[in-house]
Amino acid sequence: MVMKSKVLIVGGTGYLGKRLVKASLAQGHVTYVLQRPEVGVDIEKVQTLLSFKEQGALLVHGSFDDHQSLVNAVKLVDVVICTISGVHIRSHQILLQLKLVEAIKQAGNIKRFLPSEFGTDPARMENAMEPGRVTFDDKMVVRKAIEDAGIPFTYVSANCFAGYFLGGLCQPGRIIPSRDSVVLLGDANQKVIYVDEDDIATYTIKTIDDPRTLNKTLYLRPSENILSQREVVEIWENLIGKVLDKSTISREEFLATMKEKNYAEQVGLTHYYHVCYEGCLANFQIGEEGEEASRLYPEVNYTMVDKYLTRYLTGIGVLVTENLRILAVHQQSPANCKNWPGRPPLLVCYETQANYQESEDEEERIGFSLTLGVISQKAVFDLFVCRSVPTFDVASEIVIWVVAVGCVCHCRTHRKNRCSTQ
Amino acid sequence: MVMKSKVLIVGGTGYLGKRLVKASLAQGHVTYVLQRPEVGVDIEKVQTLLSFKEQGALLVHGSFDDHQSLVNAVKLVDVVICTISGVHIRSHQILLQLKLVEAIKQAGNIKRFLPSEFGTDPARMENAMEPGRVTFDDKMVVRKAIEDAGIPFTYVSANCFAGYFLGGLCQPGRIIPSRDSVVLLGDANQKVIYVDEDDIATYTIKTIDDPRTLNKTLYLRPSENILSQREVVEIWENLIGKVLDKSTISREEFLATMKEKNYAEQVGLTHYYHVCYEGCLANFQIGEEGEEASRLYPEVNYTMVDKYLTRYLTGIGVLVTENLRILAVHQQSPANCKNWPGRPPLLVCYETQANYQESEDEEERIGFSLTLGVISQKAVFDLFVCRSVPTFDVASEIVIWVVAVGCVCHCRTHRKNRCSTQ
Repeated sequence: MVMKSKVLIVGGTGYLGKRLVKASLAQGHVTYVLQRPEVGVDIEKVQTLLSFKEQGALLVHGSFDDHQSLVNAVKLVDVVICTISGVHIRSHQILLQLKLVEAIKQAGNIKRFLPSEFGTDPARMENAMEPGRVTFDDKMVVRKAIEDAGIPFTYVSANCFAGYFLGGLCQPGRIIPSRDSVVLLGDANQKVIYVDEDDIATYTIKTIDDPRTLNKTLYLRPSENILSQREVVEIWENLIGKVLDKSTISREEFLATMKEKNYAEQVGLTHYYHVCYEGCLANFQIGEEGEEASRLYPEVNYTMVDKYLTRYLTGIGVLVTENLRILAVHQQSPANCKNWPGRPPLLVCYETQANYQESEDEEERIGFSLTLGVISQKAVFDLFVCRSVPTFDVASEIVIWVVAVGCVCHCRTHRKNRCSTQ
Repeated sequence: MVMKSKVLIVGGTGYLGKRLVKASLAQGHVTYVLQRPEVGVDIEKVQTLLSFKEQGALLVHGSFDDHQSLVNAVKLVDVVICTISGVHIRSHQILLQLKLVEAIKQAGNIKRFLPSEFGTDPARMENAMEPGRVTFDDKMVVRKAIEDAGIPFTYVSANCFAGYFLGGLCQPGRIIPSRDSVVLLGDANQKVIYVDEDDIATYTIKTIDDPRTLNKTLYLRPSENILSQREVVEIWENLIGKVLDKSTISREEFLATMKEKNYAEQVGLTHYYHVCYEGCLANFQIGEEGEEASRLYPEVNYTMVDKYLTRYLTGIGVLVTENLRILAVHQQSPANCKNWPGRPPLLVCYETQANYQESEDEEERIGFSLTLGVISQKAVFDLFVCRSVPTFDVASEIVIWVVAVGCVCHCRTHRKNRCSTQ
């Protein structure tokens, strides 16, 4: 039987790290997570570590200040993945990895090391702007140490984290898409590549035992997610059924705003500059030293940009057609939908204009007989994107939601059949 | 049909708040969570809010700087629960609630307000020590505003959060129980009351529509969880099969250490002082103004202290009897154990001394025929606590784990039947 590699995650309580722990366990790897004394009284991190343990991961004590502890931890596994933070607005610890490289070198057993990359390919950023170039320079220092030590590696260039770039519609300092306005960066036509952080983790774990990516850079370029800021904004506008007020900030203005910002913000702003004004992620062909993940692992159903953005919808008051209005969209609890094959459907509560009435009296509102239905998740998605009304079985599952003018008040008054909102 | 109250959680992304959101949804309440612009680029909080939405909560925009937005949010619901932080090592925002009180007063519709209490009863702490008395003083300021405004209330006195006090074995600055040593506070015989934070949330939601706790203080005093530090340490020692090195810090020494600490730490230390040296939580009878939660809601299976502490076990190398050693304890994935009634069993991998061999060769190790078995969760718990070997069915479910001397290396090599480790 071919054994899957045992994996050690360093940085497992972090934003990307915890997704790697989850993906590693899901893909059947024995998974260790480094537990550092520096966690202190950060109770959220401690409880994250304990939850990993409950899911089958093993915690191993170690500290960057204790070389032997790192060696001991590394000796337990075949593959080490480090996701230590390199984002200045959170913390910048990239060079701490040099201690990990020393430990891996001494241990001698590691089949592959994946250092904290997961962004723009630093090898292409030798002319990057100050002060953000420190991120790329430090990552290259780590790469050099790895390669000088003869440690086998894969560098994952994950491009843009969807949570930041899609959540913020490519605007620095924002992570929730506005329903009113957006600032376009330049002509906003440069192609940017967005990847759902869960998919970054999935692709990364997929590659650790893949000989095709040994000593190479793995670029994540899911083809449907190569879009300009303008294209992303258009998708969002379609989802909310509304056009955003747009303004533009030129290169010069953008760089000028940096003067008022603190160091960490300036670092981030230069990164946005390279990505959005220069299109640095998508303006080159992948050469011999690289592979592309969605081509290597087509079985991964990565989250596409338009689907990703639906998570920011409230589902309330979206006018889909002239006489159809979506009131709410809820995920059904699997426990309530045992007979649904696959993923439980979304419950879409909508009303047709003809039935809409304003009333304070609950009994009267229940009597609305709003037309409701349960439709498949794909159909809902089409509903939001395509503006067509899907066909579905109306009669079998009903939940009544009540709308008062100006805001949504709802009550779970009436449940029929198996499915009900949780 | 009696309608359950609609609930607004303020502070929903916080340590206790997120548990309240979960409990409110689980108990079938329509649940709103306040989404504040101050969340900024805290992507973990934003994604927590989005996850609430996916579970059926509704997000409502509002800010403490925008009175009307608070009024509008409050008007959507029947009950408001605020869990804004009052722990100085995280942040101290108790008095911000005065703005919420103003909004509730103006809205006029709220049937009950539960302000951020959830600790020691501040009404009993008029002689509390500096500088920690600010927590109690500020909570009393909020209470006065509530009562002057005639707003119906319940104050939840939750006593000690298990994550902090059990995790730290009652030692300030610690949240992971040591396997080596413990510092006892004074004689360590004062009774302290520990409550699992999930149970705090469950009890709180249970009470919001309960007329018996209207305009009263609800104390959480689950009877099995009223224990001294010394008793908690003993439980931990039984679980790990080891006696801790003990030292003691007197009252005077404890207070003297405060001088070197910063303000936030000093605040916390005086709280520990009142709890552990003075036994302030359990040294009084609940009077007419109060109720006790475990008596009102006996159907809540609260987590007992000894059970709570098992989450910190690694399960590796625990010597249970002279010839039996537990190698690992893992929660079975429910998906793999469809035929087990109730909660899936823990998989306990153990070996008997007679079989133990040291070997590097995997094939040989598989051939150990270690005696393994799957036993019920209660039986495992008894195993850890009582040191007796339970009876169980050995033959039906087997996973082979391999132990090398000095550390645990394991491989999921051999799976039989339905259950396997995830």
